[in-house]
Amino acid sequence: MGKVFIHVVMSLDGFISKLDEMDYAWMFKHGGDDELTSRMMSEIGAVVLGNKGFRDGTMSENALPYGGMQVPQFVVTHHARDPVTLGPLTFTFEADGIARTIERAKQAAGDKGVALLGASINQQCLEAGFVDEIVIHLVPIILGDGIRLFERFGKEIDLRNEEVTTTGQVTSMRFSVVPSV
Amino acid sequence: MGKVFIHVVMSLDGFISKLDEMDYAWMFKHGGDDELTSRMMSEIGAVVLGNKGFRDGTMSENALPYGGMQVPQFVVTHHARDPVTLGPLTFTFEADGIARTIERAKQAAGDKGVALLGASINQQCLEAGFVDEIVIHLVPIILGDGIRLFERFGKEIDLRNEEVTTTGQVTSMRFSVVPSV
Repeated sequence: MGKVFIHVVMSLDGFISKLDEMDYAWMFKHGGDDELTSRMMSEIGAVVLGNKGFRDGTMSENALPYGGMQVPQFVVTHHARDPVTLGPLTFTFEADGIARTIERAKQAAGDKGVALLGASINQQCLEAGFVDEIVIHLVPIILGDGIRLFERFGKEIDLRNEEVTTTGQVTSMRFSVVPSV
Repeated sequence: MGKVFIHVVMSLDGFISKLDEMDYAWMFKHGGDDELTSRMMSEIGAVVLGNKGFRDGTMSENALPYGGMQVPQFVVTHHARDPVTLGPLTFTFEADGIARTIERAKQAAGDKGVALLGASINQQCLEAGFVDEIVIHLVPIILGDGIRLFERFGKEIDLRNEEVTTTGQVTSMRFSVVPSV
């Protein structure tokens, strides 16, 4: 079965979004697509995301995960609700916990992997030991404030450096999580 | 006159030391010297460091900046005191502010640059606009807690990606600070 990926654009000071999440021009000011992202996208068979985008209404047809790539979308939530369709994508809401949601997403992804979306989902999955790989596109900027990918877990996690590529100003790094013994 | 460098070993979650600073094996578990560090060292003509190591007694002959490389050492402090000699190095204590200390270090460094040492000194200099380059040796580990290089400055700083090299598991990145207009 496929791997579970954290896959983010991050500033040098560790932020994956500004406090105003709609202000995301910094992510693209140094150019967009790189070869690693294209490769990642071909490996993704499902997306698991947080409910925040739906709750605060920022999830829209104009800003779909992976540009609207048509793979199953699972939203982790506390309150079950009917599926929502936005453009080409249908989001199903999963209210029975993140572990079950990840399992369901893995089934749906088949041979491919599951991409996580949203700081809270990333952190919860990392903490629970569900993450197999962390892919970071590091943008040369200090944002000064925002939402961190890594808070203080209070737990050490060993990684292996699998790949480093640079595309223009962006450094893309792929790490695998070393299972703790 | 020479440049001012931030030059650190950092975990993927942004920590440059554990809460217990004496526990620094993680920095070296993936191998030590790399070509960029050797090059950096040849560019350093003075060191400016915080007073913390002296105050809490952790600065010792066995753990001198850059392995005891013989360049002038300036300690930023609030209370003037006599110079301290440890092994081959003499540390002078500067109590008239960080800006004056950086100037003095630049003079002492001649054609070479000034390396900053310690999270607080790094942050203060970055905030004050004294830093020209940031060199980070990124170690593939999530520490989970510790002392961050980058706190929430509340200020955006543009960088330019000057160089990326990998040595074994470590990714070394050199950024220059883009002067704000």
